[in-house]
Amino acid sequence: MHKLLCLIIALTPALSVHAETAASSRNLILIIGDGFDDQHVTMGRNYLVGMSGKLTLDAMPYRASVQVETVSEQGQPLYVADSANTATSLATGGITQIGRIATDIEDNDLTTIAERALDSGFRVGLVTTSSLTDATPASFLAHVSARSCEGPEEVLGSTYYGIPQPACLDDARDNGGPGSIIEQLVNSGAQVLLGGGTKFLEQTTIDGETVAAMATGQGYRILGRETDLGSVPPGRPILGTFDEETLEVRWRGTDARVGEVTETSWLHHLSDYLGDTEEPEPMSCEPNPDYEGTPALASMTDLALRHLSQDNDRGFFLMIESASIDKQSHKRNPCGSIGEIEQLEESLALALSFAGQHPDTAILVTADHAQAAQILPEPSLYSSYPIPIYSPGLVARIATPEGGMMRINYATNNGFSEEHTGANIPLFANDVAAPWLGPFLRQREVHDAMSAFLLGTREINTE
Amino acid sequence: MHKLLCLIIALTPALSVHAETAASSRNLILIIGDGFDDQHVTMGRNYLVGMSGKLTLDAMPYRASVQVETVSEQGQPLYVADSANTATSLATGGITQIGRIATDIEDNDLTTIAERALDSGFRVGLVTTSSLTDATPASFLAHVSARSCEGPEEVLGSTYYGIPQPACLDDARDNGGPGSIIEQLVNSGAQVLLGGGTKFLEQTTIDGETVAAMATGQGYRILGRETDLGSVPPGRPILGTFDEETLEVRWRGTDARVGEVTETSWLHHLSDYLGDTEEPEPMSCEPNPDYEGTPALASMTDLALRHLSQDNDRGFFLMIESASIDKQSHKRNPCGSIGEIEQLEESLALALSFAGQHPDTAILVTADHAQAAQILPEPSLYSSYPIPIYSPGLVARIATPEGGMMRINYATNNGFSEEHTGANIPLFANDVAAPWLGPFLRQREVHDAMSAFLLGTREINTE
Repeated sequence: MHKLLCLIIALTPALSVHAETAASSRNLILIIGDGFDDQHVTMGRNYLVGMSGKLTLDAMPYRASVQVETVSEQGQPLYVADSANTATSLATGGITQIGRIATDIEDNDLTTIAERALDSGFRVGLVTTSSLTDATPASFLAHVSARSCEGPEEVLGSTYYGIPQPACLDDARDNGGPGSIIEQLVNSGAQVLLGGGTKFLEQTTIDGETVAAMATGQGYRILGRETDLGSVPPGRPILGTFDEETLEVRWRGTDARVGEVTETSWLHHLSDYLGDTEEPEPMSCEPNPDYEGTPALASMTDLALRHLSQDNDRGFFLMIESASIDKQSHKRNPCGSIGEIEQLEESLALALSFAGQHPDTAILVTADHAQAAQILPEPSLYSSYPIPIYSPGLVARIATPEGGMMRINYATNNGFSEEHTGANIPLFANDVAAPWLGPFLRQREVHDAMSAFLLGTREINTE
Repeated sequence: MHKLLCLIIALTPALSVHAETAASSRNLILIIGDGFDDQHVTMGRNYLVGMSGKLTLDAMPYRASVQVETVSEQGQPLYVADSANTATSLATGGITQIGRIATDIEDNDLTTIAERALDSGFRVGLVTTSSLTDATPASFLAHVSARSCEGPEEVLGSTYYGIPQPACLDDARDNGGPGSIIEQLVNSGAQVLLGGGTKFLEQTTIDGETVAAMATGQGYRILGRETDLGSVPPGRPILGTFDEETLEVRWRGTDARVGEVTETSWLHHLSDYLGDTEEPEPMSCEPNPDYEGTPALASMTDLALRHLSQDNDRGFFLMIESASIDKQSHKRNPCGSIGEIEQLEESLALALSFAGQHPDTAILVTADHAQAAQILPEPSLYSSYPIPIYSPGLVARIATPEGGMMRINYATNNGFSEEHTGANIPLFANDVAAPWLGPFLRQREVHDAMSAFLLGTREINTE
C-alpha cells in the first residue's frame, strides 16, 4: 500500500449541468448481486414470478450492459474477474488484478467513492449477506493487497483448506500499515456496517484489544443476532455482525441436495452411443433450517436506510450486497442462489419505496461478474435421439411454483467449486440515476457515473 | 395449419402518438444474431476490439433485456427455446412450442409482421447466413408444424443422421396445403430472399417443376455464387442462394480445431485429488478455406438495402440473420462464432449508415435465445490448489489480437451438439426504434413494438 496523489479533474461538458446541482442533498444506493448475471436473473424470474412474470428489477426504467475489465499482475487483459477486482472497479474507477482490494497492480491505494463521500460530509453504509470483510464490501472502505487479509490474524498469513493464502505484510499494523480489512472498516468513519464476520471482530489487534473493542472506542454501537433491528436507536454509528462469516441463505434444495451427476450404465463406458442414463431426481426449494435467526437483507436494508437518512441534510452512499447468488452458485445450489435473488428483490423494493419519499435518490442494481450456472433444456433438445445425452457437469432439476421444470447446469470445474465466467453483466437504474449512465459502460465507468451524481466530480487515481 | 381470424385492435394510448404517423414511409431493419447472448457478445467484443473496446452495437443508444417464452405441446412453461419458437415470437407475437414455424400449439397459423407489411404495401426482405428455409427466416414468411419441412421432399418426412424428422402432412401441397417452407417463401411476395438453401430450390414440386422454376414463374431473378451482387439491377424481386444449406463461416480455429477435452493422467482416475492435467493447446482464429467464394452477410445486406429502398415511397421490413453464432457454438467452434459476430457487426454498420440517410429507419439487433459457450478464467480461479482442476466439458483457448488468452467452455451436452440455454437475451436499438421499446420486454413484445412502429397497429392472433 502506497499513498497516491489524487487528482480532481473537471467534469466533461456533458455532465456539467448535473454537476452544478451536486452540492445539494442526495442519496446513492448501489445494490450488487454477486454473480448476478443474465442466467441468474432469468433463474430468479422463472422461479419467483414465472416465465412470463416481472421481477421488481424488470420494472426499473433503465437498463445497461456493463463490461468487466481485469488485468494480470503484468497488466495484460484477463477475461474473467473475481469479486475483489470488480468491486475495486465499482468503488474506485480503477482496473486491477484478481484478489486486490482497492489497490492497483503496483499496490497503490485507489481512493473509493465511499471514502470521498465521507470526506464530503455524506454518511456511508455497507450492508451485505457476506462477511463485512469479504471482497465486495471491503473494496469500498479498505485497501489491502489481498482479499484474504480479513482480520488481524489473516493479514499476517492464513491457510484455506490447507492451502497458504496471501498475507498483506505491508498493510499490517505490525509494520506500520492501516491493518487488516476489519480494522480498516472500523476506522473508516462509516455510519452503518451490517453483515457477517463476527469471527473477525473477536480477533485481537496489535494493541491487545479485540476489534470489537476497537470499534466501540470509535463510537460504534455493536449489534448482533440478539438485536431487534427494528428498534435500534439513531445517533451512534452501528456495526452489526450476525454470523461468524457469511450469513446462512434462506433456501436450499430438497433435503439439502445440490447439483448432481447424471449416472450412466456400464454399457455407456464401452461407447458414447450405448447405454442408459439416470438423471438427478427433480427437487424443490425449501426453507434452509440453518437460516433461522438470520436477519433478512431487507431488515438490514431497512435499518440502514433509517439510520443513514435520519436528520441528514447532506445525503448518503449505501452499498447493499446480496452475496450468496455467487457463493451458492460456486456450491451448485440453485435454490440457495434463488433465495438470495429474492432477498435482493426485497431490498430493492425498500430502496424504491425510500426513493419515492426522497426524490433525489439514485438507485443502481448491478452484478460484479458472471457465474457458472446455466439454464438447460428439459428435456434435452436431442432427447429424440436414441443415444445417452447428458451434461458432463452437475445438474439440478428444480420444480417451479408455476409447474415447470428448470434444469440448472454447473459444468465449469471438476473440483470443489465452480468458476466465474466472463460475460458482460446487467445494470438496472431508476430515473434519477439514468441521466448519468449510458447503455454500454465499462465497470469503471459505473463508478465514474456514481461519483459524478453524488460528488459532482470525477476523481482520477494517478501517481 | 388452420386459418385464423385476425383481430386488429387499437393501440394502447401510450403508443397512439406514434401510430398517427405510421402511414408515412418508414423502414424497419431487424438484425438477429442466432444464439447471440451476453457470453457471445462479450466473446466477440474481447476478440474483435479488445477487452476495453467498443463494438458497433455497443455504441447503439438503447439497450433492453428480452425474456424468451416457450411452451410445451400442452402449453406448460419451458425454460429453454429453439430458433423456431423464438423466431415465431419475434415474427408473430405468439408463444409456441419448440420446432414450430409461425404456428401455435394447435397448429393454427400465426400471421407474421412480414406478411402484414406486404399486405400494407411495404417491401419485405429476408437475408441470412443459414439456409433461407432454416427456422429463423422461415418463421417470417411460412407456416408449418415442424421446422424440418424445408422442401417438397422433407414436408413428407425426412431423416437426420438416421433419425426420423417430423413431416408436415397437413401443410403439403399433396394434401391441399401451401407446401413446404421453400414453396411458401417463393409464393410469399417478398422482394428479397438471400441466403443458403440451393438444394431446396432444386427439388421438384407436385407440379413437376423445380422450386427454382416456380420462383422464376413468380417473377424472381435467381442469383447464385456466380452473381456479382454489386451489379444486380433493380426491378424484379430477387432470390439468391449461395450454398446448398448453411453458408460456410469466415473463420475457424487453427487447423480446424474446436473445443477439446482436457486430458488427465492415469493417477487422476484413482482419485479426484491426484494426477496431472494436459490442457488443450492455445489456438488462433484463421480464415476458413471453405468460406472462399461465399458472399459476406454485409454484401447481401448491401444488395438488400439497395433493392428494397430504390423507388420505394412506402418503406420496407428487412430481417437480417447472422445464423452461425449459434450453429458454430453447437459445434464448439468459438472462432466460427466470432467470425459470424464480425459479419453481424459489418451488416449493422451498413444498416446504421443507411439509417443516417433515411431518417425514419428503425434498427433493432437482438438474439433469439442463449447458447452454450461460456468464457472461463485462464488460468482457473483455483489454479493455486495442488489438485487437478479442469472443465468437464470441451475447452478452446483462443489467443486474442490484444495479447490475451480467452478460454471458452462448452459443457452442456456430452454428445454431438451443445444445447441452447435459457438466459434472457440482449436487445440493442437506434434512436428511431427506442420510443417503441421498454428496458424489459418479452420476446412477443418485441414483435408488438415492431408492428406498432411499422404498421401503426398491433395485431392479436386469436381464433
